[in-house]
Amino acid sequence: MAAPPHLDEFARIARFFAPLAGAGGLGLKDDVALIDGPAGTQYVLKTDAIVEGVHYLPGDPPRQVAQKLLRVNLSDLAAKGAAPVGYLLTTALPPACDEAWLEEFSAGLAADQAEYGIALLGGDSVATPGPATLSVAAIGIVKAGRAVLRSGARAGQLVFVSGTLGDAALGVLAAKGRDLGVGAAECAYLVDRFRLPRPRLNLGARLAGIASAMMDISDGLVADFGHLCDASGLAGVVEAGRVPLSQAAHAALARDGGLIASVLGGGDDYELLFTAPKGAEPALAGLARETGVGVTAIGWVEMGQGVRVLDKGGKELALAVKGYEHF
Amino acid sequence: MAAPPHLDEFARIARFFAPLAGAGGLGLKDDVALIDGPAGTQYVLKTDAIVEGVHYLPGDPPRQVAQKLLRVNLSDLAAKGAAPVGYLLTTALPPACDEAWLEEFSAGLAADQAEYGIALLGGDSVATPGPATLSVAAIGIVKAGRAVLRSGARAGQLVFVSGTLGDAALGVLAAKGRDLGVGAAECAYLVDRFRLPRPRLNLGARLAGIASAMMDISDGLVADFGHLCDASGLAGVVEAGRVPLSQAAHAALARDGGLIASVLGGGDDYELLFTAPKGAEPALAGLARETGVGVTAIGWVEMGQGVRVLDKGGKELALAVKGYEHF
Repeated sequence: MAAPPHLDEFARIARFFAPLAGAGGLGLKDDVALIDGPAGTQYVLKTDAIVEGVHYLPGDPPRQVAQKLLRVNLSDLAAKGAAPVGYLLTTALPPACDEAWLEEFSAGLAADQAEYGIALLGGDSVATPGPATLSVAAIGIVKAGRAVLRSGARAGQLVFVSGTLGDAALGVLAAKGRDLGVGAAECAYLVDRFRLPRPRLNLGARLAGIASAMMDISDGLVADFGHLCDASGLAGVVEAGRVPLSQAAHAALARDGGLIASVLGGGDDYELLFTAPKGAEPALAGLARETGVGVTAIGWVEMGQGVRVLDKGGKELALAVKGYEHF
Repeated sequence: MAAPPHLDEFARIARFFAPLAGAGGLGLKDDVALIDGPAGTQYVLKTDAIVEGVHYLPGDPPRQVAQKLLRVNLSDLAAKGAAPVGYLLTTALPPACDEAWLEEFSAGLAADQAEYGIALLGGDSVATPGPATLSVAAIGIVKAGRAVLRSGARAGQLVFVSGTLGDAALGVLAAKGRDLGVGAAECAYLVDRFRLPRPRLNLGARLAGIASAMMDISDGLVADFGHLCDASGLAGVVEAGRVPLSQAAHAALARDGGLIASVLGGGDDYELLFTAPKGAEPALAGLARETGVGVTAIGWVEMGQGVRVLDKGGKELALAVKGYEHF
């Protein structure tokens, strides 16, 4: 769709921006910042930008663009165990984003404000001759010291994910016209999972105090698990056969087993990825029941570096897709 | 330079975004948001975006682009009387912004972090096929209830500005090659005032408790004074002859009196505009001495609506340029 980043995003951040980070910036390794809030609390700050033609298609419904923009940020708050407070919105819009577009876009924001109990706090609105560029800075709140960082995993702990993985990556393929050999309803389900993330705010908040490290999966399971392992100074192991799949994803994989690379490597899942001690499994099963969001153990963390993915026989899988991929 | 906004920025915000604002968003009328901070404080949140080719020229030194980006946000914090804490940075960069560009850009950020005692807290970095789009969300802190809003002016109070006005607007003309008939040093001074705003943080912080309403001048004196008057439910009067000018601006106006329209209507001053009771003048003179930044009374606020500009004879000036203008 668009040119890939000329310099890998992570390399760029590490080289040019990480040296600028203050203590609250957590070395830019956690995707969020923490600042002191009112008595006994901390604010969690997160900003994420999306560009037309890079992160969404020019023809995508503005309502869904707005909702995705908000939700990818709320997903990061969820992954710290934070409750959302509000957001700042910055829009750089080309003339093609006319009043009808803005009407739908703001309706999407209004719907999600009601859904998630947040309000717009401020922002900026500028013109651009280029593609629409939209960014949100979301503010969440958490009890002081309770934000779940990426760096807290301990060797021997299990790694879990919420919901099902790979739906959005398969949804992108379907939206691009690829025949996944699944029914129309399954196809619509997968595309919707790509268009409308469900930030796991209730589950995330309940996981504070149980999860030792947490983040959301936006760049794909393997890449993001790698970030969590790096931040914790550990290695990670995923058992591919335990990765939870939706019915639609099951159907697609039954027809083309190679799609497992998209499931494990594709992005836009916006599910929680977290580590917890082995004894936590009964409590996690309870939380899954109470929040209605599945929680599945998919592997573990151990001494070492990097992430290995094992097949059902325990043999390491070589995955074609390990990185960040939007379209 | 670029297409003007297809819908006026203020109309767009009022119509589509203001209805989404929560209490901390101050109805989006104050350009900043307030949220509770640690005991007895409030955070002031401000976000501002700049687009290559719209707010700065593609050939502008990346170091200065970084500094301007930070400083326009710090200027808003100054105008609330807040002390800066840190910032989130979002960059959408085209391939042309290569490693050399990033090197210089991050050096500019580092220099200003040292200058203003702030740190990078987090951000996002994405690729764009369009022009570079850069935004900062700046966080300041102020004693609870002491942030100076736009809405606090009272009829009969005087209106003041810091520093000198119009330098940046004349600097833009000079940068575009217009012969202002001033010497090379004056010309360089004016261009520098456009490229590198000086956020009036010390003065702004000292004005909390004295100024009744305050904002920074970014869209031009007349337009921004209009915003302050609207927010306060008052009319404003400016005596053009009292507007403080630099030596360079004086020289340019002596040659072409019509440039007064650029001085009063052009943007990018990043000086403070505030109201205060008449009795405050001695205290303000003291603050000006202590901070080394001039403070000048230029008019007053009264019952009514709109802003009038009077010439030295007390006759209303009709200004050709009243609005927002970058290049």
